[in-house]
Amino acid sequence: MIGGGTGSFTLLSILKDYVQDITALVNMADDGGSTGVLRDELGALPPGDIRQCLVALSRSSDQMRELFNYRFEQGTFEGHSFGNLFLTAVEKMSDNFSEAVEFASEVLNIQGRVLPMTLDDVRLVVEFSDGTKVKGELKIGHMNFKGRLKPVLSLDPGGKINSEASEAIKNADLVVIAPGNLYGSIGPALIIDGVAEALEESQAKLVYVCNLMTKPGQTDGFKVSDYAVEIERFIGKGQLDYVLYNDKQPPKELLDKYSEEKEFLVGWNDKALQGNSYLAMGGDFLSENVHSTNENDKLRSGNTFIRHDAEAIAKQLMKIYYS
Amino acid sequence: MIGGGTGSFTLLSILKDYVQDITALVNMADDGGSTGVLRDELGALPPGDIRQCLVALSRSSDQMRELFNYRFEQGTFEGHSFGNLFLTAVEKMSDNFSEAVEFASEVLNIQGRVLPMTLDDVRLVVEFSDGTKVKGELKIGHMNFKGRLKPVLSLDPGGKINSEASEAIKNADLVVIAPGNLYGSIGPALIIDGVAEALEESQAKLVYVCNLMTKPGQTDGFKVSDYAVEIERFIGKGQLDYVLYNDKQPPKELLDKYSEEKEFLVGWNDKALQGNSYLAMGGDFLSENVHSTNENDKLRSGNTFIRHDAEAIAKQLMKIYYS
Repeated sequence: MIGGGTGSFTLLSILKDYVQDITALVNMADDGGSTGVLRDELGALPPGDIRQCLVALSRSSDQMRELFNYRFEQGTFEGHSFGNLFLTAVEKMSDNFSEAVEFASEVLNIQGRVLPMTLDDVRLVVEFSDGTKVKGELKIGHMNFKGRLKPVLSLDPGGKINSEASEAIKNADLVVIAPGNLYGSIGPALIIDGVAEALEESQAKLVYVCNLMTKPGQTDGFKVSDYAVEIERFIGKGQLDYVLYNDKQPPKELLDKYSEEKEFLVGWNDKALQGNSYLAMGGDFLSENVHSTNENDKLRSGNTFIRHDAEAIAKQLMKIYYS
Repeated sequence: MIGGGTGSFTLLSILKDYVQDITALVNMADDGGSTGVLRDELGALPPGDIRQCLVALSRSSDQMRELFNYRFEQGTFEGHSFGNLFLTAVEKMSDNFSEAVEFASEVLNIQGRVLPMTLDDVRLVVEFSDGTKVKGELKIGHMNFKGRLKPVLSLDPGGKINSEASEAIKNADLVVIAPGNLYGSIGPALIIDGVAEALEESQAKLVYVCNLMTKPGQTDGFKVSDYAVEIERFIGKGQLDYVLYNDKQPPKELLDKYSEEKEFLVGWNDKALQGNSYLAMGGDFLSENVHSTNENDKLRSGNTFIRHDAEAIAKQLMKIYYS
């Protein structure tokens, strides 16, 4: 599974009940929060998304998983999660980020593997149609593209695919592109040098799980087919085999609450979803009565909100896998 | 074993090869370095000495032990050891320092147990004959008593013995007071409320391993019997059963080097060592050709220096134990 961000962590934690031999391939352009400080001050590779994937796949005690996600609440360490410090300490100690991820994988007794998509120190850049460039995933994640939609993504410095990640893709039976922030999380993982080639070479069925809601200022008005077009812009046209999208309506009062934030349900156009190289599969992928358990989800913490039903997606993925 | 500081960590790491069921009882008045910052900023109990005892008793991989002792080298985290952050994170997460020590004991797969001597947030105070008081172990450790020797030690706030530590002392067959900084490390562990009582009640043989060298400004001119008198001032006269001291001369050039720092070999007076409630046992307890492996030992890093031979002490302790 390729991803980074909340969508992929949730899906991973469910998928591990369905698939023994699961590999999480993680975006490495994150530069926000605790991760950003560790990158800037210590020259570390970004630990945050790796940590969350590790915890999602962990079979160890609640205490160990909680510890990895524990954030210091005050003083010098405020906002830093213990797991980030673990990964960075081992990386600095061994001068090897892969070793850090492996060691944490042992300690957390994970099912499957977590692999950084690249081991290079990459930073995300977007370039808009008017020629302006913006650098930094955190900054890009918070920006309003102001109508300059579908920008060009690149990495500067750039990076090539981690050879283990490349092998994992080539040897996979099923590759899933998780739902997530298109330009701030999924895109940066897909544009790494060698990812498109590995996907091309792989015999795996390639499935993209489309987002539920548009991101204000970035994917306004996007339909399912627009997301698919963007994904294929990153990895090459004709690569996707399946696109999963939700066709169930959430309750109106919930949609109203989201619309106040200018987030809207991703719609679809039946015609645009036909005649593509991929098969589009709609379904009820909506979770019911979701309450926030994610510490990052401060905006709607305590409220009901719109999320994927990871179980329903996992079942659909299994159908595709066995078809 | 009762201690804190380099002497006890070295002895522990050797003793674990001789004794299955070993318990380290650790001084909790440390307030220097990484430990001091964590105490001040997060209200944590002092993790540093606990961590070093845990690592000394660990049977886990080199990588895990190295990680616990790993210190961040730059940025916000400079000087903080990973193990300290581990202990503090679990303490803050569970609001329970004992749980933190237990969890770290599991992760490090330690032999025996490590127990904080108290779970109260104690700070060391010395009061001199001229009435002046100084607070804080770090400050006291670096001070020159200026002839006002044998000050009164107290804790403010004070603390009572951890009930598990009390049980461990009462049920022990042998209790060893490790060599270490008399007023800055061993004393603060012994003066905790309830320690003297537990030792009194215990059937264990109580052995004190005397320091090799005097501490300038604090124990100048001390002989073995002076150390023993001070120890019994903390825990009650007549409590010690054995005092082990080194009677071997180190090479002259080494003594000369130490004398430049005003540190001198602890001598003894045969007469003063007779007629006590304890049996004084001299022996060759001097390690040969010791090079610093301790990161705290910056002063003589790379040089030869004077250290206990922990193997020889362990063997002598075993003789006492089986006698």
